[in-house]
Amino acid sequence: MTINMEKPYVVGMDIGGTNTVFGVVDSRGNVLASDSVKTQQYAEVNEYVDAVCKKLLPLLQQFGGAEKIKGMGVGAPNGNYYSGTIEFAPNLPWKGVIPLAAMFEERLGIPTALTNDANAAAIGEMTYGAARGLKDFIMITLGTGVGSGIVINGQLVYGHDGFAGELGHVVVDPAGRQCGCGRKGCLETYCSATGVARTAREFLVARSEPSLLRNIPSEEIQSKDVYDAAVKGDKLALEIFEFTGKVLGTALANFVAFSSPEAIILFGGLAKSGDYIMKPIQKALEENVLNIYKGKTKLLLSQLKDADAAVLGASALGWEVRES
Amino acid sequence: MTINMEKPYVVGMDIGGTNTVFGVVDSRGNVLASDSVKTQQYAEVNEYVDAVCKKLLPLLQQFGGAEKIKGMGVGAPNGNYYSGTIEFAPNLPWKGVIPLAAMFEERLGIPTALTNDANAAAIGEMTYGAARGLKDFIMITLGTGVGSGIVINGQLVYGHDGFAGELGHVVVDPAGRQCGCGRKGCLETYCSATGVARTAREFLVARSEPSLLRNIPSEEIQSKDVYDAAVKGDKLALEIFEFTGKVLGTALANFVAFSSPEAIILFGGLAKSGDYIMKPIQKALEENVLNIYKGKTKLLLSQLKDADAAVLGASALGWEVRES
Repeated sequence: MTINMEKPYVVGMDIGGTNTVFGVVDSRGNVLASDSVKTQQYAEVNEYVDAVCKKLLPLLQQFGGAEKIKGMGVGAPNGNYYSGTIEFAPNLPWKGVIPLAAMFEERLGIPTALTNDANAAAIGEMTYGAARGLKDFIMITLGTGVGSGIVINGQLVYGHDGFAGELGHVVVDPAGRQCGCGRKGCLETYCSATGVARTAREFLVARSEPSLLRNIPSEEIQSKDVYDAAVKGDKLALEIFEFTGKVLGTALANFVAFSSPEAIILFGGLAKSGDYIMKPIQKALEENVLNIYKGKTKLLLSQLKDADAAVLGASALGWEVRES
Repeated sequence: MTINMEKPYVVGMDIGGTNTVFGVVDSRGNVLASDSVKTQQYAEVNEYVDAVCKKLLPLLQQFGGAEKIKGMGVGAPNGNYYSGTIEFAPNLPWKGVIPLAAMFEERLGIPTALTNDANAAAIGEMTYGAARGLKDFIMITLGTGVGSGIVINGQLVYGHDGFAGELGHVVVDPAGRQCGCGRKGCLETYCSATGVARTAREFLVARSEPSLLRNIPSEEIQSKDVYDAAVKGDKLALEIFEFTGKVLGTALANFVAFSSPEAIILFGGLAKSGDYIMKPIQKALEENVLNIYKGKTKLLLSQLKDADAAVLGASALGWEVRES
């Protein structure tokens, strides 16, 4: 991070399928001001960029305008760091290849870098969070899907095409659950929030034991409900977390054989289920990892402040952006 | 590679469970002279180092002595690049942690770097072979075991502890074959030369169809026999390659999701079985890879000259060694 006193701020923006959140961030990782728009409301990407700029420009004015901004970092699904484009993102309203970094650069006059949301989270964690000082770590984001950002030798791994680090789509069971990507048994079909809900529905059908989860209509069950039931000691809910943790920990053991990271950092709602999920993950990781790695890889929770995490993560990229 | 005219050569040494081969190499990748010792003959590591030096020093004299050598690179099972040690290598006669780089440095006065054999192969391929100019690739060595060397952003991935890149021990089937590492279903139990022989024995028991392989006593079957039978059109042998290629290609598809390499380079005896194995690997890779990677990752064969490959690969590390 290079801090230039004439440009002491960065802008972070996180594009989600539902909301786009953006804010002005200082070098200590304080989100000084933020706002949002509804992503799905703009079928046309130009209208979307207009809407964001209309709300972002007044925020910038509070801190001296665009000339005080070192750079803007954008985290977006299917974001390509090399080209600054969003490419064929299934959950966004704009189809094909969208040159979003260039569009914002043109409107705002701020150098802009873009990457996928999990990579942004990894850079955020390295700049402000649990990965400060780490040169080799893997960030796993457990949300609606499962994403990942891999850091090796202190550098984010983008791969030759900008799309490295799709660990949510590592196949853990070739005969397993149908994934949205068209294949079967991807990690994300088990360890995302939707995967946990799916496990709950499967367990409720396959077993006859009583559970608090039976009070909820099957198709409405969410991972939060599983957590609430687990807190009340519900045995089936605890087993759902154990199953999920085992699948994730076993997959993590394979990831360790790839890059031998000092730490794996978990981020997102599911990671906040505490020991219910962390203990089974840790257990499966240690049991399944190759001997030479045993006891070496730390399992950590993200330290990014919850409400700000998405904006913070993306903003960290703003410090590294090249001025054009 | 920095070529210093006063030190125009490097030494490469490959330590295998059976043989240790070493040689003097020039900047074009010519192995100018080489020799070997039997690794297993030296129960004590000091005797081993003595025996190597006794044969290596006369080679060096032919080219002006140790002062003409830029560095020495050693490829060894369980080699740790950071510490220059061999650690708990199951197939070598010396137990525990062996500071082999320091031992050679002391005896020869040549700066010495050490890494595992697959990493050495990757550096060799990058310096002299199929990976010249590539910044992101994965080297898979198919020998008695399965090894790997991963290059990202032009740098070899060592991980925080020096042991990254054990892709032969990624678990492809948790209920699968017993592996020498103590776990079950490692890639190496299917795709090494011994894995192919194991598949042959399993297929011969499970099926009743005729096969040339039935002329060989079951416990003596080697992967070379499967190749010879396949060349003669033996259906079962062809199926063995198809099975092996499918397992490997499916695993490679997961590796692509990690680092999105421009190429995967295959090295070793099995890779030389040509289309019998390459076609099923390519097919399984393309079928199983996530959409965004389809058609992007090249599957290549090593271009290192066969007899020299091990020495060449290790020697390439000699160009990068830090003088102490």
